[in-house]
Amino acid sequence: MKTDGSPLHVVIVGAGFGGLAAARALARGNVRVTLVDQRNHHLFQPLLYQVATAGLSPADIAAPIRSILRHHKNVRVLLDTVVDIDAADRRVLLASRRTLRFDRLIVATGARHSYFGREEWEAHAPGIKSIDDATTVRRKVLLALERAETEPDPLRRQALLTFVIVGGGPTGVEMAGAVAELARRSVSQDFRSITPHCSKVLLVEAGPRLLASFPPALSAKARKAIEDLGVTVMTDQRVSAITDAYIEVGGTRVPTHTVVWAAGVRASAAAMWLKAEADRVGRVIVDPDLSVPGHDGIYAIGDTASFTDAAGRCLPGIAPVAKQQGRHVGEQILRGRTKPFRYRDYGNLATIGRHRAVIDFGWLRLSGVFAWFVWTTAHIFFLAGFRNRLLVGANWLWNYLTFERGARLITGGDASLHGDQA
Amino acid sequence: MKTDGSPLHVVIVGAGFGGLAAARALARGNVRVTLVDQRNHHLFQPLLYQVATAGLSPADIAAPIRSILRHHKNVRVLLDTVVDIDAADRRVLLASRRTLRFDRLIVATGARHSYFGREEWEAHAPGIKSIDDATTVRRKVLLALERAETEPDPLRRQALLTFVIVGGGPTGVEMAGAVAELARRSVSQDFRSITPHCSKVLLVEAGPRLLASFPPALSAKARKAIEDLGVTVMTDQRVSAITDAYIEVGGTRVPTHTVVWAAGVRASAAAMWLKAEADRVGRVIVDPDLSVPGHDGIYAIGDTASFTDAAGRCLPGIAPVAKQQGRHVGEQILRGRTKPFRYRDYGNLATIGRHRAVIDFGWLRLSGVFAWFVWTTAHIFFLAGFRNRLLVGANWLWNYLTFERGARLITGGDASLHGDQA
Repeated sequence: MKTDGSPLHVVIVGAGFGGLAAARALARGNVRVTLVDQRNHHLFQPLLYQVATAGLSPADIAAPIRSILRHHKNVRVLLDTVVDIDAADRRVLLASRRTLRFDRLIVATGARHSYFGREEWEAHAPGIKSIDDATTVRRKVLLALERAETEPDPLRRQALLTFVIVGGGPTGVEMAGAVAELARRSVSQDFRSITPHCSKVLLVEAGPRLLASFPPALSAKARKAIEDLGVTVMTDQRVSAITDAYIEVGGTRVPTHTVVWAAGVRASAAAMWLKAEADRVGRVIVDPDLSVPGHDGIYAIGDTASFTDAAGRCLPGIAPVAKQQGRHVGEQILRGRTKPFRYRDYGNLATIGRHRAVIDFGWLRLSGVFAWFVWTTAHIFFLAGFRNRLLVGANWLWNYLTFERGARLITGGDASLHGDQA
Repeated sequence: MKTDGSPLHVVIVGAGFGGLAAARALARGNVRVTLVDQRNHHLFQPLLYQVATAGLSPADIAAPIRSILRHHKNVRVLLDTVVDIDAADRRVLLASRRTLRFDRLIVATGARHSYFGREEWEAHAPGIKSIDDATTVRRKVLLALERAETEPDPLRRQALLTFVIVGGGPTGVEMAGAVAELARRSVSQDFRSITPHCSKVLLVEAGPRLLASFPPALSAKARKAIEDLGVTVMTDQRVSAITDAYIEVGGTRVPTHTVVWAAGVRASAAAMWLKAEADRVGRVIVDPDLSVPGHDGIYAIGDTASFTDAAGRCLPGIAPVAKQQGRHVGEQILRGRTKPFRYRDYGNLATIGRHRAVIDFGWLRLSGVFAWFVWTTAHIFFLAGFRNRLLVGANWLWNYLTFERGARLITGGDASLHGDQA
């Protein structure tokens, strides 16, 4: 509460896992909350690769922010884009030319892909961060299969049937497994010319092993599992060029038209807006209580924040970190305190294809089919709305039983193979 | 079979209801079939308005053509766009520069909207024929609600909350009912400034009554039902202008930013390709056996064909007509016969909002809730794939029980309210 007795106005920028957790924590207190996002929906990003590989529909993993927060009457949701922050004057500047005055500000604007200075690669190697990204990749993969079906030249056909995923972290591994299943198994009955063995899926990692954040034993299991699905894993290999027609890996040219980028991210412009110190990937370096140094009452969380815990470990950009940070900041604002944030690590999960996963709980390491069931249950459980849990559950069960990929739709501007419609 | 003993090659252009029915009929015979479509999916068009109003996801009402026909090994599916037909040389010319030689040709290329010579209206009043059309309309409606939520000027807000549907046929009535429910009921809990009573939904029809193809008693019931949902019905009213900011109806300007076109269609370019005689809306005038006069072994079906039955009635452009025509042509080709086509009319259905419908079976007329259940069952039953039946059923049940509109996603180029992302 302010000195005049009116409730504090807390502005949250971004309705990802962090922003939403903060809004929920604050909804319990005597504050006014405004949550701004440039999209109308919260997205369950860990499952975006399923949309990109036609396993799920966008609406299965996204829900309107307004619906999620509808019962919190002190929370206002605003569809708008932040263009700058005036920290001194305590105002957020919006693209609609409106401004939002705040007493407390939580910046949770997430991250985008980073191409390490080779931004020209983006046109040929899209990453997967938004629904539109995912449907773009889906279109590319499905169109490549369609083109291959009618391509008489064997070399050109092989290029169309070569799919390269750059980056061996959880997203890259999940994506490679799903693409392998889509290209090699699900479609095998539907096409006449191309057979499962025609397709080649490469997973390229610059470091020595996949899933570097997992223990080496689980990395090895993941590699074995993904190779069983038909993925060729290339570790210790650097990408030196990506064009419309090929990718250059370790000095060798691999002809392909479908490259997916899962190698690096860069934080949003928040550090620039706040003129705050940032780490190598643009994340705001925050104090132990997640506040931005020098800016009283301004916090950065999730992928926007660079947080080093007491053990000297920089926390990774994953959903559980963002959620816990959002909740922490929300609670601290309500209590008017500045307790340091402590991350509780419940484990690390990655899935490989249709029914395998690796899980690292620290005290317990799982892999294989049982791990997949744990992973599936956890993901369905954490999905934002009940309806989504229900539908994702039904969809997965269906995919699991039939190998069907139900959302194999080519939509959007480039949906027809050759220019305008008949 | 040809004189040399090799099987006939039948080319089907278009995988709508007509083309798919023809392919299925032909799959049973000793012929080679090539089905060409410019999209990779068959679309259950009668439910497209549900995608436009966020009730269903695109993948719920669309399925890959390849999957639908996967077990018919004599059918080849081609994603390509027809640019012309050389009837004399018996070749179909494709956008990929390939050509398809045929022994028999079935043209089932459907229809697009028609703006009666005012094509400039299309930019402001999209129609709903494809998935991209439907997601465009969905984005427009949802963005208008979002903008209204923060608009301080009452006149501008009223314009944002005015939704106009042009055309009082089944599509227009269904669309108006669904928009009224979306704008007036489903969102009522989610917004803070706008309330259900702020929104205005207008349904404009040039003729004297809604659902002109139904008996007058059912038209009146439909009008009553849709007015109960809060739709203002304007019959005998002509549209004279549509711009970005208003629509002019019967000489009066109504400020609005969301106009949906459901007033007229025009057949595809098939008549032009074939240099065949066409009716007023561009449909090929076909012989009693659905063949194109003067072109031996070339047929037109569905929305592409203008067929007058023995009673002198020109058949409407609806799914059952297309399906029966497709099956008929397929069977006649297999049998080498030219039996006249006869349409079996199983009834006429239209739905109004969440739980009312009108049905005209000829011998039986239904309206109200029971009619809605019949309608729902019929639609779920006729959906192309089992998976879709399951999911549409679950989705509908969910919408019905909760008033939730689960697919309320703003996606695509213009998804953010104000230009580029933060």
